[in-house]
Amino acid sequence: MNSPTDKNNPETGVKSREERAHHEALSPSSRSVTFGPDTPLKLDAGGELSPFTIAYETYGSLNEDHSNAILVFHALTGDQYAASPSPVTGKPGWWSTMIGPGKPIDTERYFVICSNVLGGCSGSTGPASINPATDKPYGLDLPVITVPDMVRAQTMLVDYLGIDKLFSVIGGSMGGMQAMQWAAAYPERVNSAILIATASHHSSQNIAFYEVGRQAVMADLDWHGGRYYDYDVTPKKGLAVARMAAHVTYMSEQSLQNKFGRNLQNSTEKGFSFDAEFEIESYLHHQGMTFVDRFDANSYLYVTRAMDYFDLAASYDGQLAKAFMGTKARFCVVSFTSDWHFPTSASRTIVHALNAAGASVSFVEIDSDKGHDAFLLEEPEFFDAINGFLHAADRSNDQSGNHDDTEERS
Amino acid sequence: MNSPTDKNNPETGVKSREERAHHEALSPSSRSVTFGPDTPLKLDAGGELSPFTIAYETYGSLNEDHSNAILVFHALTGDQYAASPSPVTGKPGWWSTMIGPGKPIDTERYFVICSNVLGGCSGSTGPASINPATDKPYGLDLPVITVPDMVRAQTMLVDYLGIDKLFSVIGGSMGGMQAMQWAAAYPERVNSAILIATASHHSSQNIAFYEVGRQAVMADLDWHGGRYYDYDVTPKKGLAVARMAAHVTYMSEQSLQNKFGRNLQNSTEKGFSFDAEFEIESYLHHQGMTFVDRFDANSYLYVTRAMDYFDLAASYDGQLAKAFMGTKARFCVVSFTSDWHFPTSASRTIVHALNAAGASVSFVEIDSDKGHDAFLLEEPEFFDAINGFLHAADRSNDQSGNHDDTEERS
Repeated sequence: MNSPTDKNNPETGVKSREERAHHEALSPSSRSVTFGPDTPLKLDAGGELSPFTIAYETYGSLNEDHSNAILVFHALTGDQYAASPSPVTGKPGWWSTMIGPGKPIDTERYFVICSNVLGGCSGSTGPASINPATDKPYGLDLPVITVPDMVRAQTMLVDYLGIDKLFSVIGGSMGGMQAMQWAAAYPERVNSAILIATASHHSSQNIAFYEVGRQAVMADLDWHGGRYYDYDVTPKKGLAVARMAAHVTYMSEQSLQNKFGRNLQNSTEKGFSFDAEFEIESYLHHQGMTFVDRFDANSYLYVTRAMDYFDLAASYDGQLAKAFMGTKARFCVVSFTSDWHFPTSASRTIVHALNAAGASVSFVEIDSDKGHDAFLLEEPEFFDAINGFLHAADRSNDQSGNHDDTEERS
Repeated sequence: MNSPTDKNNPETGVKSREERAHHEALSPSSRSVTFGPDTPLKLDAGGELSPFTIAYETYGSLNEDHSNAILVFHALTGDQYAASPSPVTGKPGWWSTMIGPGKPIDTERYFVICSNVLGGCSGSTGPASINPATDKPYGLDLPVITVPDMVRAQTMLVDYLGIDKLFSVIGGSMGGMQAMQWAAAYPERVNSAILIATASHHSSQNIAFYEVGRQAVMADLDWHGGRYYDYDVTPKKGLAVARMAAHVTYMSEQSLQNKFGRNLQNSTEKGFSFDAEFEIESYLHHQGMTFVDRFDANSYLYVTRAMDYFDLAASYDGQLAKAFMGTKARFCVVSFTSDWHFPTSASRTIVHALNAAGASVSFVEIDSDKGHDAFLLEEPEFFDAINGFLHAADRSNDQSGNHDDTEERS
């Protein structure tokens, strides 16, 4: 490890949400570590990235033998603030119901790390970061980032934190892809993995919906071929459309029906206009508008593209089981009945591969009408499953001895 | 009927697809009828539309007692060229596999009429039509059009053609909504109705996806608040995004998987770019690009909005069965197993209401992996169902005597 620099920024005083988001992209309030020219990151797209920064947040304390660390991964538009307020929105962390003292991922017991993904816009190197070669934002000059690239960068963060083996890797959706990649590529560094509402590859339909979103961003004249930073504008309208389209896929038909149905926003009489008249329309507009202030449009392109490219089996002769062959990690796979974006069938594919690889795996399908978003919501059965699995993994770990490669299955 | 004018335009010689589409919107190659100031159309949004034109096409011959007419309705982006080549694209009619001599809707037996919907862009009055009050295209000055408005205009066309009672009304998707509206509002004028891949109302999810599309159109700077006609531009990028988003909902996850999977377009190696690299991406781009040349962006807003507003039960105290109470028409309801845009559950809702109303109804769920689009494709089981139902209706009609209100159920 060659002298990465660590910092913890003070409050900055900038005002608007958009300004705060921009500031956070370049100089995060969280901890961050910059890896210099001596430790470049090899990228799947070819070439190396150097220097690069990983912004991260931690919760709880690392124990003496560094055996209680859990790496949590955020999904598409998340950030490192899993269990603490976002410095941009001021809202509680996106998984603050899951992570904390006495919560399913108990910070009195575990040291929880969450980093912003490479290509993101919350302080880790992404398209909005300054390219040292030009002193301007990278824009599309940043090479395309893959999930394995994100994970390779995370291994360097984990090394930097002095952790050899993670007690667990946990994530939903794109976070689940990262957890899977960790378990497959670094089996000796992972005691257990929890894969939630995820898939071993993006389906054709998944690619299709994200391509619609990317096209919406790129159709916006304010995108300027990704160089909007130079014009002091952002492709807000296009990004809002992308977010709205994606958001519909995160909810089940039933949850939309229960929440909004055909309710009208402000009256009982139809207005016969193209305004947001149905509640579902105002809701989507709100989702779009609040998103564009906090998220970089180019990051949206990078991170969705990373998901499109993810195909774990492809790196193992098309046989997913090979990705997990010989693993000693314990796996927990979770899906939600009404999730049509990452349906239970995608989880079953993972479970079958784990079974074929002889891995220890628990599979839980949670009955929920909340669609893909369920993994971010308080679902008691889901929380019980995570808590129960971690406790079992803990007991098993105690019996086999920490850092012991020959874990017994009790 | 006050002297509507009828015309059949000759070939025009204009060249590009886009120019042809624009020409067709104002002056269709098909037959058309213009209803003048003496016969205004009352609109649900309030006020009247006058004059207005309905462009239509017919196939087969009307028999002596005018009892063999079938009114076929097109879906969202269709036109009156159900069984003859489109003058814009030159492609066969959108239902040319279904309608023709010896086909399920047999033009040796039936006189088939298909009209372009009000609000459309294939010659019937829509937002691209000239507003006589300003001598400029209506744009958003055209009142919002509803499915009942479309149907009310069709009744005037049917009157004009000298037909009292239709042998059948048949349509899929938005076409099914029109068929349902006919059967509910004009029960004495409909012998039978075939409702395919449709719903008695747009669901919250349906509204959501179409609102994403409308937002994409309106986000395009070339939209100019709907007045793009004055600027000699069209909001192509936005409309392409809208079409792409909608198209994903028309296909099943399985059909996308079978057709494209994760196949790469031009190579076996990933290119790590934001170009259309996956086959599904090129396919969607193609769908978007070919659409914008043939369809008016404002019409897309009007016609999707008409679907959003459709809620047949709402006009009958929220009780769908009331819409069909006392009907003597025979109904055939068809759904497709993999259609998630208008799922079988939506068809069942209609069937239950028809049962509750004591109507004669056949329900067929066709096993297909082709999603919502299946109703436009050659599905033998589907074709057999349509053919069989029409034959049965024909026999029943013969037994009860044409134009006899006391139809027997044989």
